[in-house]
Amino acid sequence: MVYENVVTKIYESLKQETGKGRVAQYIPALSKIDPNQYSISVCDLEGGTFSIGDTDKRFTIQSISKVFTLAMASKHLGDKLWDSVGREPSGTSFNSLIQLEQERGIPRNPFINAGALVVTDKLMSLYNKPKKAILEFVRENCGDQDIYYNNEVAKSELEFSYRNVALANFMKSFGTVEHNIETIIDIYCNQCSISMNTLTLAKSFLFLANGGVNPATEQRVVKSRTAKRMNALMLTCGLYNESGDFAYRVGLPGKSGVGGGIVAVLPGKLSIAVWSPELNVNGNSYRGIDTLEQFTTEIGISVF
Amino acid sequence: MVYENVVTKIYESLKQETGKGRVAQYIPALSKIDPNQYSISVCDLEGGTFSIGDTDKRFTIQSISKVFTLAMASKHLGDKLWDSVGREPSGTSFNSLIQLEQERGIPRNPFINAGALVVTDKLMSLYNKPKKAILEFVRENCGDQDIYYNNEVAKSELEFSYRNVALANFMKSFGTVEHNIETIIDIYCNQCSISMNTLTLAKSFLFLANGGVNPATEQRVVKSRTAKRMNALMLTCGLYNESGDFAYRVGLPGKSGVGGGIVAVLPGKLSIAVWSPELNVNGNSYRGIDTLEQFTTEIGISVF
Amino acid sequence: MVYENVVTKIYESLKQETGKGRVAQYIPALSKIDPNQYSISVCDLEGGTFSIGDTDKRFTIQSISKVFTLAMASKHLGDKLWDSVGREPSGTSFNSLIQLEQERGIPRNPFINAGALVVTDKLMSLYNKPKKAILEFVRENCGDQDIYYNNEVAKSELEFSYRNVALANFMKSFGTVEHNIETIIDIYCNQCSISMNTLTLAKSFLFLANGGVNPATEQRVVKSRTAKRMNALMLTCGLYNESGDFAYRVGLPGKSGVGGGIVAVLPGKLSIAVWSPELNVNGNSYRGIDTLEQFTTEIGISVF
Amino acid sequence: MVYENVVTKIYESLKQETGKGRVAQYIPALSKIDPNQYSISVCDLEGGTFSIGDTDKRFTIQSISKVFTLAMASKHLGDKLWDSVGREPSGTSFNSLIQLEQERGIPRNPFINAGALVVTDKLMSLYNKPKKAILEFVRENCGDQDIYYNNEVAKSELEFSYRNVALANFMKSFGTVEHNIETIIDIYCNQCSISMNTLTLAKSFLFLANGGVNPATEQRVVKSRTAKRMNALMLTCGLYNESGDFAYRVGLPGKSGVGGGIVAVLPGKLSIAVWSPELNVNGNSYRGIDTLEQFTTEIGISVF
Repeated sequence: MVYENVVTKIYESLKQETGKGRVAQYIPALSKIDPNQYSISVCDLEGGTFSIGDTDKRFTIQSISKVFTLAMASKHLGDKLWDSVGREPSGTSFNSLIQLEQERGIPRNPFINAGALVVTDKLMSLYNKPKKAILEFVRENCGDQDIYYNNEVAKSELEFSYRNVALANFMKSFGTVEHNIETIIDIYCNQCSISMNTLTLAKSFLFLANGGVNPATEQRVVKSRTAKRMNALMLTCGLYNESGDFAYRVGLPGKSGVGGGIVAVLPGKLSIAVWSPELNVNGNSYRGIDTLEQFTTEIGISVF
Repeated sequence: MVYENVVTKIYESLKQETGKGRVAQYIPALSKIDPNQYSISVCDLEGGTFSIGDTDKRFTIQSISKVFTLAMASKHLGDKLWDSVGREPSGTSFNSLIQLEQERGIPRNPFINAGALVVTDKLMSLYNKPKKAILEFVRENCGDQDIYYNNEVAKSELEFSYRNVALANFMKSFGTVEHNIETIIDIYCNQCSISMNTLTLAKSFLFLANGGVNPATEQRVVKSRTAKRMNALMLTCGLYNESGDFAYRVGLPGKSGVGGGIVAVLPGKLSIAVWSPELNVNGNSYRGIDTLEQFTTEIGISVF
Repeated sequence: MVYENVVTKIYESLKQETGKGRVAQYIPALSKIDPNQYSISVCDLEGGTFSIGDTDKRFTIQSISKVFTLAMASKHLGDKLWDSVGREPSGTSFNSLIQLEQERGIPRNPFINAGALVVTDKLMSLYNKPKKAILEFVRENCGDQDIYYNNEVAKSELEFSYRNVALANFMKSFGTVEHNIETIIDIYCNQCSISMNTLTLAKSFLFLANGGVNPATEQRVVKSRTAKRMNALMLTCGLYNESGDFAYRVGLPGKSGVGGGIVAVLPGKLSIAVWSPELNVNGNSYRGIDTLEQFTTEIGISVF
Repeated sequence: MVYENVVTKIYESLKQETGKGRVAQYIPALSKIDPNQYSISVCDLEGGTFSIGDTDKRFTIQSISKVFTLAMASKHLGDKLWDSVGREPSGTSFNSLIQLEQERGIPRNPFINAGALVVTDKLMSLYNKPKKAILEFVRENCGDQDIYYNNEVAKSELEFSYRNVALANFMKSFGTVEHNIETIIDIYCNQCSISMNTLTLAKSFLFLANGGVNPATEQRVVKSRTAKRMNALMLTCGLYNESGDFAYRVGLPGKSGVGGGIVAVLPGKLSIAVWSPELNVNGNSYRGIDTLEQFTTEIGISVF
């Protein structure tokens, strides 16, 4: 594959670069992870793939799951979804309540926690068994039936979900969410616990590089314009309060999770996933961002 | 030119679409503008241009000037500039002081007023005659020596610049700006009053579609990576608190001004400028955004 | 009683003054109340009482209950209580989360909802049966065993308590509260539903006008310095975001509830309770405040 | 004088208590002050006075001057003043712009900087020579013609007044102030520089303990109800973001300045001034507050 050399070179140059960040501490199940793990996978639209590093290890995708649920809700609701959630960068941290209060219970975008909870609430109206549907959606997109929830992580998150429960109750006081809050939180904690390796993760995002069509199955996942718009959202809001910096340094639509994963797409060309559990102060994998910055610098292509 | 038909079609379809917004009211010189004026210009990297509508009329570029001053400062300072101004979307209105207080006097990005004042302050260190230098920079980029400040508008803005004077003094209390505030504000009000038509405006942004090189003169304006990064900044922060929506609907890096102008670039291809003075609640030309949305929809290309 | 004439005069002058405000709308049980009801009761330290108007009607005391629970917690915890809740006016509305986020989960004072929830959480550590203990405390203070929770109102509040559940979960994420949130909310909604008339309400606050001693039973309720400090808190924080205006117009420590009751004390002299269900935009009884302003103007005495 | 013993005792017990705070650092003229200086003066309505400590030393009264200018403006404007400035505690620091933006340019109260600037702006409409008038007002109230502006301090404050200039410009953008900003700031910096010792300061506040009448001259300074209301404002807003704590611990209406002075009144009885330049994090004299807390504890009297 054409990107094999450049990815190998980046991997070698950053392999030793650990100790600058810290693995997520807020739940025991995440805090025990070996911080040195590191893998990269690239997939192109012609079916080529290349992976290097700890590619057989799985990590929980955490906030990356917000892209999957957004795709599922957008597919059914189209622009109606935007009555309940905005499309603007928040300028605040991912679990802030301040802006939510100032803006009368409507979250700024679907990639902050409040917005993702709204999307999950919508899935409860759209699917009889939303947990099953989410898993099927991910399996279908990466072509791997062997994708599961990590029950230990999901349970651990549920135990420490006071802030998300606060967000959901707060939005319920404004009427932004309608379903039972305990169920919303259960689904949300489970979607965050989906376990993938970088290869399945990169594969599962290829439809966003391909105008909404899964290139492996040639099935349409979302409309072409939905795919473009999801890329726009990832570019402006995908890395929490570091999205502007990521656009500036990397120049690709991407989404990060506190499990240490980041996935990005180059429309018309490829998807790339990185995993390295040490996070910077914004909750993003610091080596993941470095990897992606070197990647777009080396290949000389970004969306800009 | 290849875009002639599509632009003509859009122009015809939106020609009557007035009365939805309001021309800028905050200074007398702007409030008197005829709201029905409308023009579009497209320039490609091969030298092709097409203009339609009130293309001989000039308007003040207002906040669009922030891109020119940013280019000038970035050229000299490189990444050192980012010690004094951030690169993240603000999530608040363009002249807000709230975030500035919470973040100890460092503006969120160079496209909100506070950030632009910091950039202007930097130009005062870099140039003996910054007002002259700004004008020369713009003239050089659009290849037209007949570009001037609109003294009436500049004077009117100066008279009503209390909010910007507040921002500058506030930042001076934190040490973010160093020069005389009266002079900073004078330069800033003048740069906002630069008068252009859509054709010269589109031409002046072509270097950002061309990796930093002016395609007409083949002179390098800024480094390739600076051009890319400025595009990233425009995409995440270029339309005030509507930047996310613009990325979502239009999908191009762009910059707007309260004079009713918007300019956008498609890297590797073209630049496009629109002018229509009626603004929406976010201070952006509503017909300008509609025009650009139809343009990327019709040609089927955006950065995503 | 010496205040009989002045209170009668005020009552007559304001009897017709209705229609300026609105009864509380947020729960059905409160929104159905007859807005014209009006009563005033004054009690002095010598045992004199005077009541006029709908004095046999009971209303739910709502936020006034926060004074009772604060007295109970202060009695046991003394200044240790202030590790978990502040003593400063909030400058924001009674159920705001904004300040709570900025100040890391420590509520500004015990009279905003968040602060009252912290106090209720403390009572759960101090009493085996906190609901029973609260009722006994109120009965003891007013010398009337016939005081009960209004189950209909408590149930209605529980159903619409999303905002308070949000506050409690948010504080739990910071570790400010420790007990089961459902139980905290249940106790809180019940304490708000305590039903009293103006006479029993005025009696129950006499200990705060008497250095902490119930003048009827001569039993000490709280320390002298605690009584003084509770008065200081009522004066600075007792009427939500209208406390400054109340101090300015009335000049007495007081506490209001959205049931339409307000109670105030003149240290060393008397307590006075008013009830009129129509609320102003700050959630305070507008006729209640007018009544108390006329009262301190007529008798020519306030704490200032 | 009856308070001689108790004040002497407090003075002796706190004389050595230094090193806990820091003298004001924001202007050179204040940062050079000897931090060990300490004096207390009490004046009663019968003409009795007692002073102890560095009573011949003068200090700049800083924010205490806001009470004098408020009295002057209230005298002329009555309740009309409250169209331009609020009466509620701010819940934020004394020079914050955040709340000012949220509340459309109307400051929360006349004792935060923004509110005091509004009052100074009003004096410019009411007096031909406001600087002269302020000095005469203070001289008249303390019966000492030998009160002056400290030109060195005023000049130093003017040089570092960026934050106040920002506040004034910000309010001008909302139309809250009308006069020339440079002049407003000049008057404001001068009023802050008025130099007094604790005895003249205590004397100058006696009218607020005496229903608005200067007890020495028997001249009415402000209406009785204005005096009461100014006391209410001092109690709720007089010590910046520590007003609630001061009411709780001391229980008297008071006003502090960053020069280290605090003055308080016990209506119907006395006024007391303390000076000790070391400030706590809220900008209030820490030994000043300790002194006043001991004073009301020892004499067993407060407004509560």
